[in-house]
Amino acid sequence: MIKVALIGAGRIGQVHSANIVAHPESRLVAIVDAFPEAALSLSEKTGAPVKTLEEVMADPGIDAVVIGSATDTHADFIELAARSGKAIFCEKPVDLSLARVQACLKVVEECRVPLLVGFNRRFDPNFAAVRNRYQQGQIGKAESVLIVSRDPSPPPVSYIQRSGGLFRDMTIHDFDMACYLVDEPVVAVTARGSCVVDPAIGEAGDIDTAVVTLEFASGALGTIVNTRRSGFGYDQRIELLGAEGMLKAENQLENTVLLANEQGTAVANPQYFFLERYHAAYKAEWAHFVDVALGRAQCLSGGKEGEQALRLADAAVESWTTGKTVRL
Amino acid sequence: MIKVALIGAGRIGQVHSANIVAHPESRLVAIVDAFPEAALSLSEKTGAPVKTLEEVMADPGIDAVVIGSATDTHADFIELAARSGKAIFCEKPVDLSLARVQACLKVVEECRVPLLVGFNRRFDPNFAAVRNRYQQGQIGKAESVLIVSRDPSPPPVSYIQRSGGLFRDMTIHDFDMACYLVDEPVVAVTARGSCVVDPAIGEAGDIDTAVVTLEFASGALGTIVNTRRSGFGYDQRIELLGAEGMLKAENQLENTVLLANEQGTAVANPQYFFLERYHAAYKAEWAHFVDVALGRAQCLSGGKEGEQALRLADAAVESWTTGKTVRL
Amino acid sequence: MIKVALIGAGRIGQVHSANIVAHPESRLVAIVDAFPEAALSLSEKTGAPVKTLEEVMADPGIDAVVIGSATDTHADFIELAARSGKAIFCEKPVDLSLARVQACLKVVEECRVPLLVGFNRRFDPNFAAVRNRYQQGQIGKAESVLIVSRDPSPPPVSYIQRSGGLFRDMTIHDFDMACYLVDEPVVAVTARGSCVVDPAIGEAGDIDTAVVTLEFASGALGTIVNTRRSGFGYDQRIELLGAEGMLKAENQLENTVLLANEQGTAVANPQYFFLERYHAAYKAEWAHFVDVALGRAQCLSGGKEGEQALRLADAAVESWTTGKTVRL
Amino acid sequence: MIKVALIGAGRIGQVHSANIVAHPESRLVAIVDAFPEAALSLSEKTGAPVKTLEEVMADPGIDAVVIGSATDTHADFIELAARSGKAIFCEKPVDLSLARVQACLKVVEECRVPLLVGFNRRFDPNFAAVRNRYQQGQIGKAESVLIVSRDPSPPPVSYIQRSGGLFRDMTIHDFDMACYLVDEPVVAVTARGSCVVDPAIGEAGDIDTAVVTLEFASGALGTIVNTRRSGFGYDQRIELLGAEGMLKAENQLENTVLLANEQGTAVANPQYFFLERYHAAYKAEWAHFVDVALGRAQCLSGGKEGEQALRLADAAVESWTTGKTVRL
Repeated sequence: MIKVALIGAGRIGQVHSANIVAHPESRLVAIVDAFPEAALSLSEKTGAPVKTLEEVMADPGIDAVVIGSATDTHADFIELAARSGKAIFCEKPVDLSLARVQACLKVVEECRVPLLVGFNRRFDPNFAAVRNRYQQGQIGKAESVLIVSRDPSPPPVSYIQRSGGLFRDMTIHDFDMACYLVDEPVVAVTARGSCVVDPAIGEAGDIDTAVVTLEFASGALGTIVNTRRSGFGYDQRIELLGAEGMLKAENQLENTVLLANEQGTAVANPQYFFLERYHAAYKAEWAHFVDVALGRAQCLSGGKEGEQALRLADAAVESWTTGKTVRL
Repeated sequence: MIKVALIGAGRIGQVHSANIVAHPESRLVAIVDAFPEAALSLSEKTGAPVKTLEEVMADPGIDAVVIGSATDTHADFIELAARSGKAIFCEKPVDLSLARVQACLKVVEECRVPLLVGFNRRFDPNFAAVRNRYQQGQIGKAESVLIVSRDPSPPPVSYIQRSGGLFRDMTIHDFDMACYLVDEPVVAVTARGSCVVDPAIGEAGDIDTAVVTLEFASGALGTIVNTRRSGFGYDQRIELLGAEGMLKAENQLENTVLLANEQGTAVANPQYFFLERYHAAYKAEWAHFVDVALGRAQCLSGGKEGEQALRLADAAVESWTTGKTVRL
Repeated sequence: MIKVALIGAGRIGQVHSANIVAHPESRLVAIVDAFPEAALSLSEKTGAPVKTLEEVMADPGIDAVVIGSATDTHADFIELAARSGKAIFCEKPVDLSLARVQACLKVVEECRVPLLVGFNRRFDPNFAAVRNRYQQGQIGKAESVLIVSRDPSPPPVSYIQRSGGLFRDMTIHDFDMACYLVDEPVVAVTARGSCVVDPAIGEAGDIDTAVVTLEFASGALGTIVNTRRSGFGYDQRIELLGAEGMLKAENQLENTVLLANEQGTAVANPQYFFLERYHAAYKAEWAHFVDVALGRAQCLSGGKEGEQALRLADAAVESWTTGKTVRL
Repeated sequence: MIKVALIGAGRIGQVHSANIVAHPESRLVAIVDAFPEAALSLSEKTGAPVKTLEEVMADPGIDAVVIGSATDTHADFIELAARSGKAIFCEKPVDLSLARVQACLKVVEECRVPLLVGFNRRFDPNFAAVRNRYQQGQIGKAESVLIVSRDPSPPPVSYIQRSGGLFRDMTIHDFDMACYLVDEPVVAVTARGSCVVDPAIGEAGDIDTAVVTLEFASGALGTIVNTRRSGFGYDQRIELLGAEGMLKAENQLENTVLLANEQGTAVANPQYFFLERYHAAYKAEWAHFVDVALGRAQCLSGGKEGEQALRLADAAVESWTTGKTVRL
């Protein structure tokens, strides 16, 4: 059994709190949020008391923290928790600056605490099955991977302004997925992007549509196709092609109902966004963290993975701005 | 908030206990089981104390009971609970004898307590969507319904011997679903059956494969296709054809992964059996019962529905044995 | 190479004429039709001359006839062609009267000419694959078969009046398919039907919606689900369930395009009717007839098959009117 | 009616000869091939006489030529036919050298003869439907297009050596499709490639796996994913995403049959290669050429389109070798 403090009571914090409560080996014992109302509201739902960050860090009865606060607080809170000897679950990214990430991970390493960086898609049952079946040799050596990753609709421009840009905010999940699936070092990154969904995104210095090509050490190629707006839901698919076949994970649809009439046949859309699509993934991710915190499993998504994905995002930014392939 | 006693701590009781615990407006306060070990084991998992049936019935602090014990105890326990003023959630069937069902429902009516009979499929989001969209007029007047309902593999013969036979044990869900979807009285039942899966089932006096044709008041026809063994999982599909189109609910698959190679393309099977397939249905069913117990909703699956489905099952038995269509 | 006369230049005759012309081993050498305009029009398209029935039968240079004229001429023309020593391809049915069919087949047998009765669906590549894979043992012994067979929209009442009724006109294809797939004698037929699509069909003494249950010698059950109006196209599917798995043939869709937007995802309907859906089947059927006429293959769909299907249709009529299972 | 000479009696020539023969307004009147045996064999099948190139060009009774001979003869034969006043259907590419293409097209223009360059995929009913529905405004303005284009297995290295390389031989179809769908000028090309399927392809100076990113004038992005070996058939899919939705064309499968058992559910693979997959496209392409030759339609796939696709292929080669985005 681990006792857990949740730092950040917003949308993603609420997802985690439900999983913490439902897991037979974790207990939610504290809620921290810069906005007292958010903390109080979640406290009422869960019965866990509101505490300050200082109280949490000082309390030796708290085994683990879940950090779901604003991105620019992640690295600081990780260091604080590491120095307090807590097991750490932190939403991605550790930080938008690679140097800051590296410094932070050094602290974690010195303190010898477990750290799970929330690349939730690694725990999606479909994507995990693709990886596992690849590792079992079902398709021979990987030769290419295609990741289609489209959000249903763009976030507010205010979010985009502090997001680190599309490559660091959105594509970072796909960089991680590509590495997770192909399981080889990336040696080159080529990225193209444009702003066609909303000019306000371009005015904020960002893009809303992008294509990234990854080259892996063996020569295998990866393709990531992104947009901030699919219009029809969260389009999340992967195709891993090997020497002896292809493993593919399709979208999860909202339901299995179809309507056929003179006009045609209508089926359900993909589940709308990440809360629905990755519901099972968040649950499995939490179960994995409990295993890690209790020393029963090696972390599948640690600081190194977070650093690696950010490094690829930085390379994509460079490639996009220079029009050149960036070798790593 | 309702306080709930669970009677029957077996497989289906455990499904309900999880839903009772997870629902914000219900609390599991007692567990009853004829087998002390089963009761204790579930008590340890949930923290709810083991009690006797008498204690539960006598305790005015207990608002509702969930009856998931052996079929031949259902009617007695319903009457006991009704006379104790509890809201009642009982697994189907109320009883295998229509006369006993009618006597039992009379008691429930006299005691004016809510009774939900567990036709879980009514709460499946896909099937419920078919019904709702039909009610909204999306396909005009219903002209026929096809229900394919195949178990993955047959139960033990010992189960079959006390099951009431395929029509009363298995098809009963499909009778209920046909009525729920078409929403008209059934005026005739024609049934054919045979034993081709396992001769031991035939020796027990039962069949393992069946086709039932229902005639509704408007002339609409219903077809139910059953087998105790699909071999590939729980095959649960419906097609409701109306004057202006068809609504169809397909199987839920185990995952969205496919493998393509020289030999062909392999996709996942339907979810294996009812615990997986109707996971969401059981959850929604419990939420509906809480609403009913708190007086916020009319019961969608009461005693009348249970009686009606059993009446159709009895007619199917008669039709199967006589080779004649049975008019109701 | 066979030289072929086409008797009947209507819609189905035109389908056959195209296949005769395209096949490298058949040549269309005569067209016969009671309506001179129909004959002339097809003659102009194909270059084959218009002839009278007598000319065709008397011409020893004509090896084979294709009979696609009105149903009530089939048996007479078959006998005429048999006595003239021609190989015969005749659209189903040989006749609506079982006695007439038997008399006609006797003539064919005496004349020792090949006769193919046009159960085109036997030659559909998908259905043929189901049969072949079953024969290869891919699913063990058949335990049940489900045939969904829905026309897109009802024919004119004038057609229905002389059609022999739904069971003899429409279901006859499904009776044949069930026998073709399960490959066992049918021992009992149970049929229910109603008129819900169009009252004018009922006034003509027919039904537009039906369910038939077949019992095979081994105990395997067959289900046929029919309607004259699906509203969304030609719904033609089969599911053959065996002891070790299920073979299923889905509909062929009009195209592979889908449109996804906020309202949902729209895909194509099944191909609209038999000319599109069974395009490949008609072609394969003709190729098979050429093989039969040239003595290179045993006929897969002869007079016996036509007689058997009609016998089942007659039994269905009896069951429907008496409300009893008919044993054969 | 047009009278047609076929130049090149190989595999693709045979596809065209069948369509020429089957079309009511075209007649095959001559076959030319450098290999007399190939010409004779096709002559026997079709009844059309073998002739020399000179005879064909000199014969004023021949209206049109179909050029399906070796790539390095295309430009010469086009010029010859143009100067002889024939309507010209030529397989892609006109030539592997852009300068040679431009010179050749100049001759065609001066001679004012129709030229159709065989980008067969433009005539695929699925892809054409995507284009037409986009043009009708079904998804708003295009923002990105994804083309997955995978051959089932690599051609012999001898073919690769004289193919012009993957971008000019294989991707050229996808460049053309991207332009056809998005219908805007391409302003930049970025390409990455590698050799992972067969080292012999690399030794021949070519790649077998590639990803190309196209930037269109409006900012819309195109992605092309290629490999010489899928292992499971001809993987040919497109996704055109617009401001208001997505149009997608999926693969055509070999059949509609599935087998479900304990091991899972097996469905058919995509049709194996271009002869099957683009069967309908070749037929529609020929019908279009007849319309063009008879002056009834504007050519949908002329010399300009051929030149444009080659220009993009050249840019892809440059981008791949320099590691830089090439602006056009």
